[in-house]
Amino acid sequence: MTPGASFPFMLYSGELRAEAVAEFDLAEYLHHRQEIVNNELERAVLPAYPEQLFDSMRYSLMSGGKRLRPALCIAGCEAGGGTAETALACACALEMLHTATLIHDDLPAMDNDDYRRGRLSNHKVFGEAIALLAGDALLAYSLEFLMLNTRGVPPDRMLRVMQILIQMVGVDGAVGGQVVDLSYEGRDIDLETLEYIHTHKTGALLVAAVVTGAVLAGADEDTITRLRSYAQKLGLAFQIVDDILDVTSTREVLGKTPHKDEQAGKATFPRLLGLDASRRRAAELITDAKRDLAPLGVRAVPLLAIADFVGVRMS
Amino acid sequence: MTPGASFPFMLYSGELRAEAVAEFDLAEYLHHRQEIVNNELERAVLPAYPEQLFDSMRYSLMSGGKRLRPALCIAGCEAGGGTAETALACACALEMLHTATLIHDDLPAMDNDDYRRGRLSNHKVFGEAIALLAGDALLAYSLEFLMLNTRGVPPDRMLRVMQILIQMVGVDGAVGGQVVDLSYEGRDIDLETLEYIHTHKTGALLVAAVVTGAVLAGADEDTITRLRSYAQKLGLAFQIVDDILDVTSTREVLGKTPHKDEQAGKATFPRLLGLDASRRRAAELITDAKRDLAPLGVRAVPLLAIADFVGVRMS
Repeated sequence: MTPGASFPFMLYSGELRAEAVAEFDLAEYLHHRQEIVNNELERAVLPAYPEQLFDSMRYSLMSGGKRLRPALCIAGCEAGGGTAETALACACALEMLHTATLIHDDLPAMDNDDYRRGRLSNHKVFGEAIALLAGDALLAYSLEFLMLNTRGVPPDRMLRVMQILIQMVGVDGAVGGQVVDLSYEGRDIDLETLEYIHTHKTGALLVAAVVTGAVLAGADEDTITRLRSYAQKLGLAFQIVDDILDVTSTREVLGKTPHKDEQAGKATFPRLLGLDASRRRAAELITDAKRDLAPLGVRAVPLLAIADFVGVRMS
Repeated sequence: MTPGASFPFMLYSGELRAEAVAEFDLAEYLHHRQEIVNNELERAVLPAYPEQLFDSMRYSLMSGGKRLRPALCIAGCEAGGGTAETALACACALEMLHTATLIHDDLPAMDNDDYRRGRLSNHKVFGEAIALLAGDALLAYSLEFLMLNTRGVPPDRMLRVMQILIQMVGVDGAVGGQVVDLSYEGRDIDLETLEYIHTHKTGALLVAAVVTGAVLAGADEDTITRLRSYAQKLGLAFQIVDDILDVTSTREVLGKTPHKDEQAGKATFPRLLGLDASRRRAAELITDAKRDLAPLGVRAVPLLAIADFVGVRMS
């Protein structure tokens, strides 16, 4: 499969064929998506006045993230019958929103993390004031970029996409999750609250990624519901795996300080359930998530492969 | 004029009549707008989980601001031929956006202000982490509230309104202005940079208020251009007057710590031009702003009165 070529499995609509899954190369798929997203992000935030602010925004945005949310948005759009091109601006907006929350979360008043993606955190390089404002600016700019760079999508569908993004980054999403997370630091916590934190702090933006992709594609409501359910399970599995890696991994592999959760006395799945049960729970969620996609046929192959990939990360 | 009654001057379309101006009671007009906006904001952010976050959002949102931006949005809508009802959700969104920027600006890493609107700043009551997140949450929620509570406005017009708001709060607006403001603290500054700071940090949201009101009303492009020009001049005049009041006023009158700019060595119009020349510049801007509205006739009476009011504040 040539990078940049249109997705060949689109030729066979309908049921999922074993060959399609066998032929699909996730590494290549993700690499290609990462490349077009990085090119677009590079173009999206060019150096401008005030320089410090743009330097700070670019520093965190172009620091080599895996671009998982953009990939999920594009794959969600393809699963809903659309093209990567339709979802590209939204994919970039999701990465900007994600980066904004990371910059704010790393601040001393919050998680106080000096490293992110293997480099110094934004505020360690640019100072707290600029880091805070770069986060605010990315939050606003993500939506502006989305609106100005999405082509061929009717206004009512654009409004629905905006609403999903905005909701998933605010009180019902990342912000709500972070507040509850901070409030339980060093305190006992039950499974329900832990899941609330994870589904909001990390899960919400992953769900937004897949669902906005599907909405941009003009998918029907049944498909959107299936994709949302898939993404909710995937998101939770993803966070459980992140918790597991915090315990078992090193800074080199992780690209950020390991054992932070443990040292901060934070509640995690491994703390609450143990490592083995956490791994089992993640595996179950991944199986269930894949089951949601069954009726979508070959269009869902990338999302199926991404679910498998999350499972592979923890082993 | 009974509070709540529809705007009587709408009966006479066309040229501005002396009686209309003479009959108009700005205090009553603003009081009524403040009341409907406060009622709507009270309903908009009800206590919910996580409580700390909503308490923090409500604390700053309901701390008795003058609601100037909401009033400008509603008056902009009326000047464009629309009703207060059409602009109400957007008026509330503007107050939420404004409040979000105030909460972030007051943080220790930024302007480090302990008082705001005569009460302790948000972070002095709720801590820095919650204050930062309450700002993020209000930023996101303002747009969500706008989308879910505006009635009878077509989607393409809604998208234009969203774009204006988002642009005026980000790098091209409040955030950009704050970055340049911080970067010049204690340094010499020329008039051009000072105006950049003011037109972005404070002016942008005032312009957004008037222009979104006009767009929601479905005003024609000439009217929108005139209203934008009015708002740009009013916004700069407003900030010059704010600078003047920082020098001449007390905490009781101001509702926040006076002489902060002076103590922080900040560039202000009075520092650069002197008090008298600053007053003259503000007065000129107000006159020019009112001139922009001349062809709009009696529909512009509230905006004319608001411009006069800004002038009165400084004397």
